[in-house]
Amino acid sequence: MSYARQLLDSYQGTVNVDVAMLAATIDAISDCAQACTADTDADLGEQDLTEMVTCIRLCLNCTDVCTATAAVISRPADWDADVARPLLQACVAICKSCGDECERHAHMPHCRVCTEACRRCEQACRELLDAMK
Amino acid sequence: MSYARQLLDSYQGTVNVDVAMLAATIDAISDCAQACTADTDADLGEQDLTEMVTCIRLCLNCTDVCTATAAVISRPADWDADVARPLLQACVAICKSCGDECERHAHMPHCRVCTEACRRCEQACRELLDAMK
Amino acid sequence: MSYARQLLDSYQGTVNVDVAMLAATIDAISDCAQACTADTDADLGEQDLTEMVTCIRLCLNCTDVCTATAAVISRPADWDADVARPLLQACVAICKSCGDECERHAHMPHCRVCTEACRRCEQACRELLDAMK
Amino acid sequence: MSYARQLLDSYQGTVNVDVAMLAATIDAISDCAQACTADTDADLGEQDLTEMVTCIRLCLNCTDVCTATAAVISRPADWDADVARPLLQACVAICKSCGDECERHAHMPHCRVCTEACRRCEQACRELLDAMK
Repeated sequence: MSYARQLLDSYQGTVNVDVAMLAATIDAISDCAQACTADTDADLGEQDLTEMVTCIRLCLNCTDVCTATAAVISRPADWDADVARPLLQACVAICKSCGDECERHAHMPHCRVCTEACRRCEQACRELLDAMK
Repeated sequence: MSYARQLLDSYQGTVNVDVAMLAATIDAISDCAQACTADTDADLGEQDLTEMVTCIRLCLNCTDVCTATAAVISRPADWDADVARPLLQACVAICKSCGDECERHAHMPHCRVCTEACRRCEQACRELLDAMK
Repeated sequence: MSYARQLLDSYQGTVNVDVAMLAATIDAISDCAQACTADTDADLGEQDLTEMVTCIRLCLNCTDVCTATAAVISRPADWDADVARPLLQACVAICKSCGDECERHAHMPHCRVCTEACRRCEQACRELLDAMK
Repeated sequence: MSYARQLLDSYQGTVNVDVAMLAATIDAISDCAQACTADTDADLGEQDLTEMVTCIRLCLNCTDVCTATAAVISRPADWDADVARPLLQACVAICKSCGDECERHAHMPHCRVCTEACRRCEQACRELLDAMK
């Protein structure tokens, strides 16, 4: 069981969304941030760098958006949907773009791994957004 | 002239928004992230901590959202409004909440400074959002 | 298998340390950053806040140091021991202090979880430092 | 006067280093993080990307180390030299490397700006380290 889940299970206040779903989303977002950081470095090691520029830029944005989103939703007290919702929407948008671009390079193992991380993160954020309605 | 402005002035590609406005927004967001980090620490030094809890939580979220937003809009190539817009909206929302809460403690010098940083950041993000329409 | 491990396994360049150890360290550091973020929020929900101030401050520093360290060691190309070594040392120092403080509150489930995350991270960083000698 | 300085001037506890120097260091580090983020994006827009790969990697590490260092030294309560010192040393090391590499590209305006930001940050961190002895 991830630390995110263990910490949410120990939470004493009210959490307005399902704890298992929230923990899974935090984990998916954190994993995606890490995958994008590593994929950026792997992209920079490729021969045809011109082909990788868009992928690198998207991975950099994805890392930053995911890092902020994971942190904010890890603080369920004083949960503010006016902050969490647009953040999760930004996360969905960048994970979609980054996942699509990585999929174009899915013959490169690092981009294949990063595609999976982005898809899982996008899906988890969509589900959390749906649950917040 | 800030580094943000100098770097945007040296930018070779197309930037879809006014460079002076974009640079000012980056600076206002970076300053706000820094002010909120320092204000969190100052809040933790106050006698009546119960009074400061909401302020601390908002400052923590504000730092994280501002840090991501400043980074993403510092990469004007492949600018994606579907990512930048919700990020800036999240930034406006958290700066409004954090600024309001800090203003309630405006008799504390550190919260007075942080109020100003949040207000400037909120205003700059609103102007950039308006310019993106 | 974590994304960190999968991405390192796909790495085409030379990695100067054992890949399994490096991946495990990245995972332990990322997990610790997440645990400290969540523990900060849980600490802020405790009744006796005065008792939690040091814990909160250490968790905040631990999150920031871990986030930077995980990112830097996720970029094994151009590995620079003059940067990685002091970063890992800072990580060991803050995880030791934060783990010790959390252990003082081990009757609180959230601090018990965070203690474990800090201890694992400290141990992983020490092993990586030893392997770099 | 920067927010860092205003917030430190309002600080009620004991700060173990000169407040003006500490504030100037926080500002120099924050500015360097921002410059390196923007320079990464500008590097990715250059024609000869192979020439820029090392610069990009160093800028990415520099951003991450600077962000963590600025945050930690913005929390002067419970100042722990065993954490702050290696962090500042990591910051000096990466700013030196990144500044040297950017200087090699000083004919590119964005790398000239980033060189200046790295040099100022390195110098400020060295002075703070000297003052901590």
